Amino acid sequence: MRYDIAIIGTGPAGLSAAVTATIRNKRVLLLGSRNLCEKLAKAHEIQNYLGFPAVKGEDLAAAFQRHISQMGIQITEKRVSAVYAMGDFFALQAGEDMLEASSVILATGVVQAKPLPGEEELLGRGVSYCATCDAPLYRGKRAAVIGYRPREEAEAAFLSEVCSEVLYFPVYKEETHLPEAVKVIREKVAGIENQDGARVVKTAENGYTVDGVFVLREAVAPSQLVPGLETDGSHVRVDRKMAASIPGVFACGDITGTPYQYIKAAGEGNVAALSAVAFLDQKERK
Amino acid sequence: MRYDIAIIGTGPAGLSAAVTATIRNKRVLLLGSRNLCEKLAKAHEIQNYLGFPAVKGEDLAAAFQRHISQMGIQITEKRVSAVYAMGDFFALQAGEDMLEASSVILATGVVQAKPLPGEEELLGRGVSYCATCDAPLYRGKRAAVIGYRPREEAEAAFLSEVCSEVLYFPVYKEETHLPEAVKVIREKVAGIENQDGARVVKTAENGYTVDGVFVLREAVAPSQLVPGLETDGSHVRVDRKMAASIPGVFACGDITGTPYQYIKAAGEGNVAALSAVAFLDQKERK
Repeated sequence: MRYDIAIIGTGPAGLSAAVTATIRNKRVLLLGSRNLCEKLAKAHEIQNYLGFPAVKGEDLAAAFQRHISQMGIQITEKRVSAVYAMGDFFALQAGEDMLEASSVILATGVVQAKPLPGEEELLGRGVSYCATCDAPLYRGKRAAVIGYRPREEAEAAFLSEVCSEVLYFPVYKEETHLPEAVKVIREKVAGIENQDGARVVKTAENGYTVDGVFVLREAVAPSQLVPGLETDGSHVRVDRKMAASIPGVFACGDITGTPYQYIKAAGEGNVAALSAVAFLDQKERK
Repeated sequence: MRYDIAIIGTGPAGLSAAVTATIRNKRVLLLGSRNLCEKLAKAHEIQNYLGFPAVKGEDLAAAFQRHISQMGIQITEKRVSAVYAMGDFFALQAGEDMLEASSVILATGVVQAKPLPGEEELLGRGVSYCATCDAPLYRGKRAAVIGYRPREEAEAAFLSEVCSEVLYFPVYKEETHLPEAVKVIREKVAGIENQDGARVVKTAENGYTVDGVFVLREAVAPSQLVPGLETDGSHVRVDRKMAASIPGVFACGDITGTPYQYIKAAGEGNVAALSAVAFLDQKERK
């Protein structure tokens, strides 16, 4: 099945895009978390989402949830690790699945964290962002997981079934809940290095030699998510129609730049959806 | 009294700008109608303002009204006829008054071309300006589209997926490219009438009875409002920060271009306000 529009991200931008694309009768694949956007749900009070004076984040999130539910919009809980432009369509790698769509809307938010020293250089050469995808490469070998959110513990647990040894570096304060096979190391990661064909996770105190390093955080940098896409630092470069540099790719919300505001994100989601619709219509006429 | 930010227009764009500018402690002059936006209040149902599923225009307008009331934002009911850049500030001509502000946000919407006879009277009662918004009202019913530009054909094509019958009246000479389901009628439209609860599109030759009429046209340039401002046809040229060509002038909502959508307008209002705040901060530092 090839979707018309794949929307990656379930914050206000992605949801707004999904609502408008659905109204326009497109086959929409909305990928993200069923809990929508963690940042929104945790927001204390939002004062400037027009129509909701002084609203709690959780209440606004609930209103968004009602909106998509009423329209029958489903969220597919898959993490997209890469989007490839295949000429006539896009292939989305989600774990072991390859999904297809004629156009893509990026609404994954902004990557807060700066990449670790060595991370970008070693990506694909011992550093990976996707345990599901790359675990087989480290069967019977040693892996390190640098997890930025408690939910990444599930990935570490999975790796411990495949690898001979798994080290877990939590980049958060919450208590970890991991199988015994996973060794938790509470040290601040300073960087990743290549030494004699092995990877070394450097902390202030020590160096840990492993075969592969998994860096797992909420959002993947846009340039890694869509190879070849023009970016501006951590942001996707878009025009006023929310079109990115690759025809058929659109972006909205925090990923397009400041201000990081919910109503701005929702507005851009609407524009991105209508631009994707126009792109599809144009394509059909050819 | 010199205001920090004068906001002209009380549709979603102007209100959103006023909310954010007020949060940022600026002296805001909000100029427009206390009834907010006529087009909004008359909208039958809006489906894609995220957070308000299937909301009536009047209900959404009431939510906006509550929002600004709770924040103590006042609307000054004056019609601005011209904005002059005076070097260090802007002078706004409003009837016989001259008002002053350090920055200006244009949110006046689009000035429609000369309306067809009957169009204004029937707006919201069988006449609509937005296929995306109002198509669901005519599911399985008959619709007429009066299209002033070839690009409106995409809207007619979309309507033909929803409506039982779509008549298309091109107000231009170019050949049409439409699905078979759309019936093209090359007759000059003379007006729209209400007859026995149905709408009749009158031409010199005939009368066509339908349930709903979509009037889709390019807007007329409001460039005389700010002499010297760069425009793009009927729209103010802005960058991604909503800055217009004159420093200190920002624009948001329909006046900046399509799509004409409430959530897009509200999002842009937020961005315009934060850009105006940044402009004022910069100015103060000098």
